[in-house]
Amino acid sequence: MMSTTGSTQTKKSTDLKRVLLFADAYKAFQGDSKELSDATRAAMKEYLGGKGAGLAEMTASGVNVPPGLTIATSVCREYHEQGQKVPAGLFDQVLEQLKHVESTLDRKLGDLEKPLLLSVRSGAKFSMPGMMDTILNLGLNDKTVESLAKLTNNPRFAWDSYRRFIQMYCNVVLDIHKDKFEDILDDKKDDLGIKNDPDLTAEHLKDLVKEYKELVLKQHGKPFPQDTNEQLTGAIEAVFRSWNNNRAIYYRNLNKIDHNLGTAVTIQAMVFGNLDDQSGTGVCFTRNPSTGEKLLYGEYLVNAQGEDVVAGTRTPKKISEMAKEMPKVYEELLATVGKLEKHYKDMQDIEFTVEHERLFILQTRTGKRTAAAAVKLAVDMNNEKIIGVNEALSRVEPMQLNQLLLPSFMPKDKDKAKAEGRLLTTGLNASPGAAIGIITFDPNESEKLAAKNEKVILVRIETCPDDIHGIVPAQGVITTRGGMTSHAAVVARGMGKPCVAGCEAVKIDMQKQEFTVNGKTFKKGDTISIDGSTGEIFSGAIATHEPEFSSEFTTLLNWADKVRVLQVRANADTPEDAHTAREFGAEGIGLCRTEHMFMSQDRLPAVQEMIMATNLEERKAALAKLLPMQREDFKGIFREMKGLPVTIRLLDPPLHEFLPKLETLIEEVSTMRAKGTKGPQLREKEVMLQKVHELHESNPMMGLRGCRLGLVYPEINKMQVQAIFEAAIAVKKEGLEVFPEIMIPLVGHVNELKMARTVLEGAAKEVMDREKTTVDYKFGTMIEIPRACVTADEIAEHAEFFSFGTNDLTQMTFGYSRDDAEGKFLNRYLEGIDVNGTKHKVLESNPFEVLDRNGVGKLMKIAVEYGLQTRPDLKLGICGEHGGEPSSIAFAHQIGLAYVSCSPFRVPVARLAAAQAAIQTVESDK
Amino acid sequence: MMSTTGSTQTKKSTDLKRVLLFADAYKAFQGDSKELSDATRAAMKEYLGGKGAGLAEMTASGVNVPPGLTIATSVCREYHEQGQKVPAGLFDQVLEQLKHVESTLDRKLGDLEKPLLLSVRSGAKFSMPGMMDTILNLGLNDKTVESLAKLTNNPRFAWDSYRRFIQMYCNVVLDIHKDKFEDILDDKKDDLGIKNDPDLTAEHLKDLVKEYKELVLKQHGKPFPQDTNEQLTGAIEAVFRSWNNNRAIYYRNLNKIDHNLGTAVTIQAMVFGNLDDQSGTGVCFTRNPSTGEKLLYGEYLVNAQGEDVVAGTRTPKKISEMAKEMPKVYEELLATVGKLEKHYKDMQDIEFTVEHERLFILQTRTGKRTAAAAVKLAVDMNNEKIIGVNEALSRVEPMQLNQLLLPSFMPKDKDKAKAEGRLLTTGLNASPGAAIGIITFDPNESEKLAAKNEKVILVRIETCPDDIHGIVPAQGVITTRGGMTSHAAVVARGMGKPCVAGCEAVKIDMQKQEFTVNGKTFKKGDTISIDGSTGEIFSGAIATHEPEFSSEFTTLLNWADKVRVLQVRANADTPEDAHTAREFGAEGIGLCRTEHMFMSQDRLPAVQEMIMATNLEERKAALAKLLPMQREDFKGIFREMKGLPVTIRLLDPPLHEFLPKLETLIEEVSTMRAKGTKGPQLREKEVMLQKVHELHESNPMMGLRGCRLGLVYPEINKMQVQAIFEAAIAVKKEGLEVFPEIMIPLVGHVNELKMARTVLEGAAKEVMDREKTTVDYKFGTMIEIPRACVTADEIAEHAEFFSFGTNDLTQMTFGYSRDDAEGKFLNRYLEGIDVNGTKHKVLESNPFEVLDRNGVGKLMKIAVEYGLQTRPDLKLGICGEHGGEPSSIAFAHQIGLAYVSCSPFRVPVARLAAAQAAIQTVESDK
Repeated sequence: MMSTTGSTQTKKSTDLKRVLLFADAYKAFQGDSKELSDATRAAMKEYLGGKGAGLAEMTASGVNVPPGLTIATSVCREYHEQGQKVPAGLFDQVLEQLKHVESTLDRKLGDLEKPLLLSVRSGAKFSMPGMMDTILNLGLNDKTVESLAKLTNNPRFAWDSYRRFIQMYCNVVLDIHKDKFEDILDDKKDDLGIKNDPDLTAEHLKDLVKEYKELVLKQHGKPFPQDTNEQLTGAIEAVFRSWNNNRAIYYRNLNKIDHNLGTAVTIQAMVFGNLDDQSGTGVCFTRNPSTGEKLLYGEYLVNAQGEDVVAGTRTPKKISEMAKEMPKVYEELLATVGKLEKHYKDMQDIEFTVEHERLFILQTRTGKRTAAAAVKLAVDMNNEKIIGVNEALSRVEPMQLNQLLLPSFMPKDKDKAKAEGRLLTTGLNASPGAAIGIITFDPNESEKLAAKNEKVILVRIETCPDDIHGIVPAQGVITTRGGMTSHAAVVARGMGKPCVAGCEAVKIDMQKQEFTVNGKTFKKGDTISIDGSTGEIFSGAIATHEPEFSSEFTTLLNWADKVRVLQVRANADTPEDAHTAREFGAEGIGLCRTEHMFMSQDRLPAVQEMIMATNLEERKAALAKLLPMQREDFKGIFREMKGLPVTIRLLDPPLHEFLPKLETLIEEVSTMRAKGTKGPQLREKEVMLQKVHELHESNPMMGLRGCRLGLVYPEINKMQVQAIFEAAIAVKKEGLEVFPEIMIPLVGHVNELKMARTVLEGAAKEVMDREKTTVDYKFGTMIEIPRACVTADEIAEHAEFFSFGTNDLTQMTFGYSRDDAEGKFLNRYLEGIDVNGTKHKVLESNPFEVLDRNGVGKLMKIAVEYGLQTRPDLKLGICGEHGGEPSSIAFAHQIGLAYVSCSPFRVPVARLAAAQAAIQTVESDK
Repeated sequence: MMSTTGSTQTKKSTDLKRVLLFADAYKAFQGDSKELSDATRAAMKEYLGGKGAGLAEMTASGVNVPPGLTIATSVCREYHEQGQKVPAGLFDQVLEQLKHVESTLDRKLGDLEKPLLLSVRSGAKFSMPGMMDTILNLGLNDKTVESLAKLTNNPRFAWDSYRRFIQMYCNVVLDIHKDKFEDILDDKKDDLGIKNDPDLTAEHLKDLVKEYKELVLKQHGKPFPQDTNEQLTGAIEAVFRSWNNNRAIYYRNLNKIDHNLGTAVTIQAMVFGNLDDQSGTGVCFTRNPSTGEKLLYGEYLVNAQGEDVVAGTRTPKKISEMAKEMPKVYEELLATVGKLEKHYKDMQDIEFTVEHERLFILQTRTGKRTAAAAVKLAVDMNNEKIIGVNEALSRVEPMQLNQLLLPSFMPKDKDKAKAEGRLLTTGLNASPGAAIGIITFDPNESEKLAAKNEKVILVRIETCPDDIHGIVPAQGVITTRGGMTSHAAVVARGMGKPCVAGCEAVKIDMQKQEFTVNGKTFKKGDTISIDGSTGEIFSGAIATHEPEFSSEFTTLLNWADKVRVLQVRANADTPEDAHTAREFGAEGIGLCRTEHMFMSQDRLPAVQEMIMATNLEERKAALAKLLPMQREDFKGIFREMKGLPVTIRLLDPPLHEFLPKLETLIEEVSTMRAKGTKGPQLREKEVMLQKVHELHESNPMMGLRGCRLGLVYPEINKMQVQAIFEAAIAVKKEGLEVFPEIMIPLVGHVNELKMARTVLEGAAKEVMDREKTTVDYKFGTMIEIPRACVTADEIAEHAEFFSFGTNDLTQMTFGYSRDDAEGKFLNRYLEGIDVNGTKHKVLESNPFEVLDRNGVGKLMKIAVEYGLQTRPDLKLGICGEHGGEPSSIAFAHQIGLAYVSCSPFRVPVARLAAAQAAIQTVESDK
């Protein structure tokens, strides 16, 4: 439930006038203080509604706003409390205040020479967009319309305004449905053989007004009111009534807004940019929203209203040309936008109108910006002493930084490609970044082509460890099957290489070496472009731009490092990854997945030999081949991370992931048998098939993997620990510091950890004894099984650190297999499910992207609490993909974790998000 | 940590003598009260050790126990506190008390005519079996051995006793290792060419004693002590010392027993059943341990020691023959066992010795019994006013009742089969009961043979819905693959049909229609026997006996019904199951799995049609075919359960479970293609393969199933709800009451339940409106996803009941896929994992059998607490397999669930277990 009571720290609303000019309102609330406090701003919003308060604030910032007044929300309440009766004396007060508006503009409501036109709008404390009524062009009648035509020298404009006013007024005030007017308009166009409204002439519109007025007389029993005061009082009362229309009540129920708040009524003078050639209208940004450069940016049209800009019939000019065309107004505009930016302390997106050399600001709001601009703006504004460091840090959306780290398509070129129908399909955005290349379906070919400096996109049904040599040299990868955690997705993310996964619309024909997608066919060698950040696939090439790191980028992240409490580590499996991670500012490795080392092309034969072993001796022999390779990997990583901790997770996936797929083998063996193939060739396949059958699991995610594997085949983990300690000692001898943290995965019961640790401490000691030296190491576990969370007190007895594996924890807490869920029902859950005719979202966000605080988060909190009970100095971190997602990072900060660990390319995002989390905590503690 | 301090409600130990005769001890503690309280019993145990307290209690129960005395544990503490010094005066006190023993038996320690022999044993508060020392036959020396030979008229016995005494005494008291004596014995036998000890004559043994004594002199420097008092004091001190030997310290550390407790020393006269023909020895039960019949049961040997019974060289006689052979002693025995049973209030298993017509009770303990006997004993003893109803209920182990409900093998015949080597292998005990039949590998053949009244055992690699028609008529099922939740296991348990699953040692050769197991081959038509309760498979037939329900069985369960708080429902999917459930006393159906209806042979085509549908219309057409069938199912169930609630779970499994297996299809299609098969036959298979590919999931357990399926294809659940309400209304019209409870499975997020419920309430209303009547129904959900537990407060807003689906909840809390875990690592976890050379269990029990209170249970507690916060009248139950397991039922009671639901055959178990849980709670509240 939103808070429904305003602050009472400012003047009591009973002391305030119930009708306030924009120019007076600010002072009435602010008193003599220069700065507007948040509490005062809230009180103003409650009393004058969002719109009234905004116009008052803009007016007070010293810029020229079309003048007007606001009737307080309290009047609306009174109106309804007294049985829909306008409080006595209200209209007199309105008319009295209106005199100030009239004198400011030198116009009068209903005046035949200089008629004042007004807008009458609703405005409540909480925005209720489109729920209540608005009337524009009030003050037009059969006479003033002629004056307006003369003044603007544009009869068509005048009559069209009048026509619209009648329709709007009758709809809102007299309850004549607007369709009735639309019917007349449509008939008229049919009669005239005209298709589009702009083709109607002033004379046509004049005829229409006549017909409209006849309709009013017939429906309402009285003619359309020509008395402008009567128009005004009618409009005000209609806005009061609209507070309680069905739409508004429904909306308030839905959003739990108090029905007793009432709406304010804001009455504002209308100004005209189409009065003459000293008039005009435009839109501008106080700085360049693409680059952040401090230079007025925007466009304008001379002798035009806002609608003309939207209609696109005339091409606007660059704002800088105003300097020549309207030098005085331009000067004023520059000064005005400066005031606004200073007042609102952020880059502003401003709408303005010039009425005969007089500049009016119609609207100002915070301007949207690119990532690059956001970074530059934040740092510049701090340099200009407009905002503090914390505010600067809060100004940049962390996820935006991603754009700055990876190549991306030029937005214009991408839009063009879309307009040309070159967007072929959208798959899962499995690994961000943009890539262009020629199609290949074969990893070997990918390797060969890349060796010839060809850029290739590898297109596969799915990938497996055997394909790595083809993925490494490719620009990007497309798979037609598999989700965000499929082999291709995981490997590509690790490499920072674009990948679009689970692209079901793409049907590959391997024999013809082509694929079809939505009726179009692409052959090997055709060029395509993929955007891994959005999952889009395009035909042909789209221009990309490479990432550049501005000095502001570095400054901002340095500020973030000073503010944040959370440490940021990276998930890195190779020395190369580790190098990238350090460059991006990682303070250690939070997750080194040793299975990724097993999957590389040169090791796979030894890994398969180990798996196919029929006894312990054979297995040990195969492991002995892997030992030196693993040792070299670890040496490389330790060297890169010199002095920083490296968390190494022991082998996690089920062993069958290193063997060919069951389905493929069955197909091969069946075919060979049916064709009568005999001999060792068949035999070899059969043996492999039998092993794969043996290892086959119904639900491998929950099968023999992680520490379970380590307990059943302890020799594998022992080899890994041996490699870690031998590497650590070797690197120590080179004079570098090494801090390995050995992580035992998938622990669900304390005994698993206790036993695995006992065995592995033994293996570690053996190496240290043999080498006659020691290594500073830790043992800990991933917390990724729900049971581990609720028994964290027991588990902490044997773990020096917990690292939340939120990917698996989310899978098991929800009971979702990510690979299956995303394509089969999670997409439907996020889009919305049809419930009796309307779509409702089951989940607000994908729990694999944004950490589910209510469920998974609750288990994490339990684990933190229990874990610290047992071991107050327990080191806590998170190494799931959530470690690189801002809202999840904020949660990690809130529950008191020590670090987050994410992919190297997310490290800058995490540094900024961690800083924001720290700032938010400090502010909410205030 | 065990409690280490005794009760202080009884006499302070300082007031007690430190050497107590058995005959005095009881009174010293009990004072004048007749009944021994638990607290007093505990204090006695602490002061006199378990053995001393037991002998004192037996003596006090009025039976003749070989007399003796006990030195209190406090003396041992003193001994160690004073630096291993025997407290002053102790030996004098011992000798003084020993006089009473001597006069009772008319024998004296060291006496040459009537020598008294003693045993000297340790005995601590907590049993430490084998950790401390014992000495038998104390009192023998070169002279008394001759007296014993004369008395028993058995020189061989006398010299053998002396030989053993020397070895034991020297080992314990003089620290001469027993191997040294064994070496002498072995040399002797080698010299004589004798293989077995019994072949040594009295003369041989006499020689041995000589050699033993020489060894003692050599090793000890002094001769073996001939002074019997010296023997006694040496033995006592040795027992004190043995409290702190290495074994004992290790054992106490392991079991967390206080090292300061100390051991008592119990010194007891030895009696001789081999004295003459008026002597003897025997073992008896106060009632028949097989049937529970109230009749002395046992066997005895005249003129023999206990060893003779064990050695099996003489065949004992039935105890009833004693009536003729030793009528006086038999009378005394009858009176004595009656006293013992009355004192201990339970059937006793008694060892006795008769020494020249004098009856001595050596030991009594609660007798082991069969299930049938346990039930009869409990009820009889209540009728005889020996125990109350609560005690009677506590006397029967609930799981034992299972034996009474299913056919089982005659234990003797089974033992015989094992002895004959007919046990072929042991698989998973997937569904209990015994079955005999001829082997068939083909479900169709199973059906045909059964039609000819042949008993068959269906042997399959695994079963699928297509095989149901072959499972129903079979006596039992064997599968070589799949676990406790495989199709075969689930279906068989539901039918109460024996099943041995995952029998990996059995290798089927379908072409030859045979299987081999551990080198033996069995052909189609060969007879085998399977025990589904143990997982054993035997060749040939083993005699079975059918279950019978005794009147005592009914009485006991009726008592249970009065005592228990938990309701007991059954999991039943068909009218037949429902009927069985009611017969066993179910109070409703807690889980009706609608997918089991989908799997029957006649519906599968329509189900497959529904799945293969390419659009909504086709799917609806197929569902329309299923509707009348489902309606009939529900009608049948409602009729059976008249007036009782029926919880119906909407379709839960993933759809691919209703289609052929992916592997099979790939094999078939590959073979057809390789052979060049073309046309519609191949095409049909290809279409099926494509669909199965589409539906294929990496981890189907966590994929598109349960409410997810219902939200993606709402028409399936709508059809089911329509069928439920049409059936309910039809049965109501027949005049019966109907209470359907509709259960939405696999809810993890409140929105899933909210949306599914909204859709389905609509479908229900449609039927009720059309039929112009109402049905009293509830909507609720299974709690089987960890996230549902921690967000139970939200979920309870939309659920009128929670039913804990502890099978899936256990899978996801542990992250174990049951099918994969049991064969691949869970067995290893339960057997023990090697940690540096010793085996340690990772898990104490299988969490799929015994609910894991620490992990899964903690989540359940959270769910109960949160759920009741939101909805205080929330109905709570459990419907996983744990609902039929006693310790899990106790937990369900403790956390305040309203009911448990289990398979029909487990209902009696659950009724009794629920009663025991209620009794325990009341008692622990006392």
